[in-house]
Amino acid sequence: MAVYTHLGADQLAALIAHYDVGTLVSAKGIAEGVSNSNWLIETTGPEAQRDGGKTTRYILTMYERRIDIADLPFFLGLMDHLAAKGCAVPRTIHDREGASHRHVEGKAAALIEFLPGISVDRPTPAQAHSVGRALARNHLAVADFTMTRVNDMALAAWSRALEGCGEEALAAIDPALPGIAFEELRYLERQWPGGLPRGVVHADLFPDNVLFAGEDVSGLIDFYFAADDAFAYDYAVTHAAWCFSGDGRNYHAAIADALMRGYEEVRALSPGERAALPVLARGAAMRFIASRAEDWISTPADALVTPKDPMDFVHRLQFYRDHGSEVFRPAN
Amino acid sequence: MAVYTHLGADQLAALIAHYDVGTLVSAKGIAEGVSNSNWLIETTGPEAQRDGGKTTRYILTMYERRIDIADLPFFLGLMDHLAAKGCAVPRTIHDREGASHRHVEGKAAALIEFLPGISVDRPTPAQAHSVGRALARNHLAVADFTMTRVNDMALAAWSRALEGCGEEALAAIDPALPGIAFEELRYLERQWPGGLPRGVVHADLFPDNVLFAGEDVSGLIDFYFAADDAFAYDYAVTHAAWCFSGDGRNYHAAIADALMRGYEEVRALSPGERAALPVLARGAAMRFIASRAEDWISTPADALVTPKDPMDFVHRLQFYRDHGSEVFRPAN
Repeated sequence: MAVYTHLGADQLAALIAHYDVGTLVSAKGIAEGVSNSNWLIETTGPEAQRDGGKTTRYILTMYERRIDIADLPFFLGLMDHLAAKGCAVPRTIHDREGASHRHVEGKAAALIEFLPGISVDRPTPAQAHSVGRALARNHLAVADFTMTRVNDMALAAWSRALEGCGEEALAAIDPALPGIAFEELRYLERQWPGGLPRGVVHADLFPDNVLFAGEDVSGLIDFYFAADDAFAYDYAVTHAAWCFSGDGRNYHAAIADALMRGYEEVRALSPGERAALPVLARGAAMRFIASRAEDWISTPADALVTPKDPMDFVHRLQFYRDHGSEVFRPAN
Repeated sequence: MAVYTHLGADQLAALIAHYDVGTLVSAKGIAEGVSNSNWLIETTGPEAQRDGGKTTRYILTMYERRIDIADLPFFLGLMDHLAAKGCAVPRTIHDREGASHRHVEGKAAALIEFLPGISVDRPTPAQAHSVGRALARNHLAVADFTMTRVNDMALAAWSRALEGCGEEALAAIDPALPGIAFEELRYLERQWPGGLPRGVVHADLFPDNVLFAGEDVSGLIDFYFAADDAFAYDYAVTHAAWCFSGDGRNYHAAIADALMRGYEEVRALSPGERAALPVLARGAAMRFIASRAEDWISTPADALVTPKDPMDFVHRLQFYRDHGSEVFRPAN
């Protein structure tokens, strides 16, 4: 949540000159994105659409860490594919040579459509309904997307991450954590379902990656964890992200019902997907326990940024263990 | 350079509802401001000016540290005074009860006009000329501004800051630093000029506090060091901020000439002000040596943010000691 790279006005203007977006009017570094630098920039707009005082906004993203540059054509191609299918996903602006990204200061940078809207902290059921619809539309829209990417944040990676942390460090976060985590990993390794409908999924659809205009989704952003996985797993991640208080201690049934209604208005879950949801939801909770535990342990105690608490997702995991088969009961 | 406070969409919307600016359309935390949190927000605009799809932008500033809330009416009143006089300074938007700032989450927040424009790293002479004019216009415009504030970053504060650091810590930054700094403080205490024309000055007009549309200043921002001081001292700070390479090792005479020409087109410096500039410029360099040394010493070695190097201003100080009377020679 910071701007890691300094880009001067000269550098920004030189970069923008490679695109048909007119000249730079304003630029603000924005505090968004897990590990990228982002600028909200305003230009005089593409030549053909220029109209007196009207300006056009874009997000300029510079890729800093965690993202393998070799994956960029996949991420940006996915966004363009979804946008072309009418999903509320920002398009990538290609430069005059047709490239989806450029290199600046030894880093990759992409110019992305600006979508207006606001991220919400406490979604309403109407907003969850709209998110369910948008997620399902994505799942339908990737049917003819030809690129793919292995999910490097799947079950095997959770094991690796938690083993890398070690029992002692996990116990320092919470004495109960290593026991719960390793037992759960063994359970998931035995029970993880195969053969579910799959395709390229967002895999990180938290409220801060969704923009709203009122109750309606106006944008889905931050596709940098997108990868090939089960659609129902993507649904489970979204469920874990939207249907609880931040600390995971309170389950919001009205949100969950609205999410499911919205999703199934667009794409019905198969009986197999329905039946798999309790396990997939436990996996979704584990995915964030694993990455948060890693971040927690690697963050110096006096860092300016407080890492997110892995226990927030342990509470979700416990809820899914206790109530999963009840909240995800098969439709009758 | 971060967003220190998290404000949810609900909180932002509730805050905005106290102003006649319409409803929230988008909000981005921006990485700007020394020690405040800032959001670039977009609303449907004031009722009287609402016009279909057109939105209005504002900067929402939440005051975090360093700024005494008791000073806010002064800072915001100054901005409004300058804007009313036609200076390129953003106005404060007052709430429906007429207040210039409100309290949110125990902190003060103000809604400020958004000015388009870009900050430059390497100003052109034409831009320096425009800054000189804008600075002089400010100096004329404060003649009838009735509020005032003691400059708590003046000579006595530089002494206190550097003595607080201690010789040993200063020597760890650079072995030459304590000798240079304490000798210079003694010189400035003997030579600091009194009786110069004074008023409320910006006192921190670095390139990142100036927005440009092309070669013309479109905005002066960040008045949170503004205080009563000599106009010529403000000029000296601006000279130190604009007329050198970042590390202070290269002096840009063409920038300095343009800055002076611009300033004097609007407000002629008196012979006394001219004569004082060499000492004032040494003082301006000391002011940033002192604050940067303090920040350097108080920043943990493994912090994410690299503090700015005090030596950048030691190089400026050395330049002013060696060449001040030559570069600021009295007009003939």
